[in-house]
Amino acid sequence: MGPIPDTNPVLEGIEYKMYHAAVGGELTKASDDSWKKVLEEKHPEMLHLLQFPYNGESPKRLTTAQAVTPNSLHFVRNHGGIPIIDKDKYYFDLDGLVAEPKKFTLDDLQDESRFPRITKMATMQCSGTRRIEQINAYAGQGDAVPQAPWAEGAIGTATYTGVSLKKVIKACGGLIGNAKHLEFYGADTYFKAHQAMNYVVSVPWSKVKANEVLLCWEMNGEPLPAIHGFPLRVMVLGYIGARSVKWLYRVKAIENPSLAPVQSKEYLYFNQQTGKHNQKPTDGIQIQEMPVSSAIMSPWNNQVVIHNGSIHCKGWAYSGGGRWPERVELSADGGFSWYAVPLELMSAKHKWTWRTWEIDLPCDVEGWIEIVCRCWDNSLNTQPLSVRAAWNWGLHVTSSAHRIKVYSVNKTRSRTQEKLKMFEETGSPLAPLTWPEEFPTQSAEEYQEFWAKHDPRDVDE
Amino acid sequence: MGPIPDTNPVLEGIEYKMYHAAVGGELTKASDDSWKKVLEEKHPEMLHLLQFPYNGESPKRLTTAQAVTPNSLHFVRNHGGIPIIDKDKYYFDLDGLVAEPKKFTLDDLQDESRFPRITKMATMQCSGTRRIEQINAYAGQGDAVPQAPWAEGAIGTATYTGVSLKKVIKACGGLIGNAKHLEFYGADTYFKAHQAMNYVVSVPWSKVKANEVLLCWEMNGEPLPAIHGFPLRVMVLGYIGARSVKWLYRVKAIENPSLAPVQSKEYLYFNQQTGKHNQKPTDGIQIQEMPVSSAIMSPWNNQVVIHNGSIHCKGWAYSGGGRWPERVELSADGGFSWYAVPLELMSAKHKWTWRTWEIDLPCDVEGWIEIVCRCWDNSLNTQPLSVRAAWNWGLHVTSSAHRIKVYSVNKTRSRTQEKLKMFEETGSPLAPLTWPEEFPTQSAEEYQEFWAKHDPRDVDE
Repeated sequence: MGPIPDTNPVLEGIEYKMYHAAVGGELTKASDDSWKKVLEEKHPEMLHLLQFPYNGESPKRLTTAQAVTPNSLHFVRNHGGIPIIDKDKYYFDLDGLVAEPKKFTLDDLQDESRFPRITKMATMQCSGTRRIEQINAYAGQGDAVPQAPWAEGAIGTATYTGVSLKKVIKACGGLIGNAKHLEFYGADTYFKAHQAMNYVVSVPWSKVKANEVLLCWEMNGEPLPAIHGFPLRVMVLGYIGARSVKWLYRVKAIENPSLAPVQSKEYLYFNQQTGKHNQKPTDGIQIQEMPVSSAIMSPWNNQVVIHNGSIHCKGWAYSGGGRWPERVELSADGGFSWYAVPLELMSAKHKWTWRTWEIDLPCDVEGWIEIVCRCWDNSLNTQPLSVRAAWNWGLHVTSSAHRIKVYSVNKTRSRTQEKLKMFEETGSPLAPLTWPEEFPTQSAEEYQEFWAKHDPRDVDE
Repeated sequence: MGPIPDTNPVLEGIEYKMYHAAVGGELTKASDDSWKKVLEEKHPEMLHLLQFPYNGESPKRLTTAQAVTPNSLHFVRNHGGIPIIDKDKYYFDLDGLVAEPKKFTLDDLQDESRFPRITKMATMQCSGTRRIEQINAYAGQGDAVPQAPWAEGAIGTATYTGVSLKKVIKACGGLIGNAKHLEFYGADTYFKAHQAMNYVVSVPWSKVKANEVLLCWEMNGEPLPAIHGFPLRVMVLGYIGARSVKWLYRVKAIENPSLAPVQSKEYLYFNQQTGKHNQKPTDGIQIQEMPVSSAIMSPWNNQVVIHNGSIHCKGWAYSGGGRWPERVELSADGGFSWYAVPLELMSAKHKWTWRTWEIDLPCDVEGWIEIVCRCWDNSLNTQPLSVRAAWNWGLHVTSSAHRIKVYSVNKTRSRTQEKLKMFEETGSPLAPLTWPEEFPTQSAEEYQEFWAKHDPRDVDE
């Protein structure tokens, strides 16, 4: 229940390093290999939440700089080490409740005479995005790996190239029996309750059948980076990132959702009255599609903003499940009055992607204000207005309207203008605000003149 | 703008120690003398906010243990060292706009043939009480001494014995000219803008005329402790503690409120849009009477409370200016529904004092709840509902409804009861909440049985 450290990496993951070392073999140096890949493949300004398993997000100023996220800036949410896989020896199994279980190499999938190639632009979001707001509100489920303290950068948009899983299942003669779910096995390690296993989740057949589940080998026109699942990953359009298994080595057709812990015991959305004192996994909704959400990426929380009557704001908006942002609204008064972002200041709309946006938000008020952002998607879903409204024990799905505190200094006010001049002339800094100004804020004469007219602390009868 | 340290003393006051040492002479060891007096005169469990100048409040569990606060537990708000005064050599001057300026010794004041002796029970409150809530909301005016990070204990109730200042002024032949305010000089040091002076404030004559300003030598039937102003202090009934000058050495009748910084530049109540970027002292209301306020002293913020459907709460309520609490109300749902404290669970009402109270607050809800407390005084004044509503740059007068986060565990629910038993049997701790339970929360059989009935992640068409 202590504060989040102010370091980068924020957390080191000592316990998980020890787990991997204890298993031995190739895993002995999994944490070193992982960190090496981070330094090779990711942007030097990444915010490293957890060194191992590696969890990192793009720095706020770069997250929405482009509507498509460069690979080096795309967030990474790992639960174990990064498997180093030889592409030429690579294959995955498709088995379980299919007519003819088969193995597939990359060459098999890339044979366009067998499988039509698909390229989709899609946004991927971790269900933990903006978790830090829930952590700051109330202590919830602990454990550095499942509960990494994400800010607003655990979201990214890229084009993915691959094939539809539906076609690959068809190549196995289709489903048999009561098959209703597809289970994905990643080669990455996963530890739960002191047991070592692989990363395993599932998605329903209905999603696969709609051609919304791809097996991909390219990200933004390049081979998948090792850290993002080389040589092959699943891409489940419109679902949380957790279902898009990386380093795929098996797809299994099954009757019920996976019993593996990532599907059955993690990524659960509980009722607010469920917690450590009473929780059972079956009380949680298994999180698949993310609801509509948004975030302000500029200005920053606690920033002192000097402006001329309006504050320039930037950010993103997204809705899961193939819905898309239709309107983004900003408030400078804590959510009482809302300004719509002009459509020409929103990035293009697509079925599976976010939209980035910017706006000059009118603000006359000075001092601490609260800027709030919310989105309406094409189904007219919108966001809860407070973190409290949707707070939950697992600290998932922080989709409430994003609120930041900003200290507004409105230069169009003449007194403020004069005062800023005094700060400048005396070399006394305005920020940090808690540091007192180093000049008298009123002359003794002005003071006495004022109070001669207005007795400050008494009235006549 | 950083976090408040988790130490006791919370802050050391190095800058002020250096100021005093730099002046030299008797002040060289002012900080050592001050700390010695703290250890001699105050309770060992005091929460020391600032070591020098000493600022300390009673620990939460003891603040409202009695309706009258023992001297050792009464909060202390000092702005400088503690003058060590020889009672036999002591006198103070009464001068300025009075007919006959005079000196008075303690023997003079204690001569009942000259001045009727008065004993009053009164609550004293610092205008900084509960400042920590404003600090936590938004950064405000800095400086450890004026802006000490008080919690809810900067309030205390004691009986004071002394004489009415009005009678002493009468003994000087009364006021002359346009005298409308009385200025009090304390022997304690005060530093402002790198200048050394004494602690000086003023109150209006109308307050003195109403016999609401006493000169006191006893506190709870004992001579004033050195730390509380020995041998003589002012006690301004119903005003903030800052006007009740300790170690009094001069009273001066003047025309306008004191120009000394404590009166003219500190203890100002600004509008929310006034801050470092534009403030002038004349924009502030000089704080004298405190508005109605209250605080929950039990349970504590962030406490895990295991209960049987109601949570026992305790606290205080107070209103300045001679108003008194008539009703105290608690909410367990963040301020939507309110329960009144039964009158028999409130301490007796008096014109100048707080009332302590307790209540069994019904609470069915589990998980994080918000308990809120508010008071209605005899004038039907009540408290703003949020810190935001009354936040101000000087971080004074935190009189908003007091809100605490509590993790509620309702044992009357059978699942919770069973779970608590498992925590007990396995020796796995419930708190801290972020530490995972060390037993499976659901058996594999129960899990599979449940999901066989309810497909968790798909629907039929």
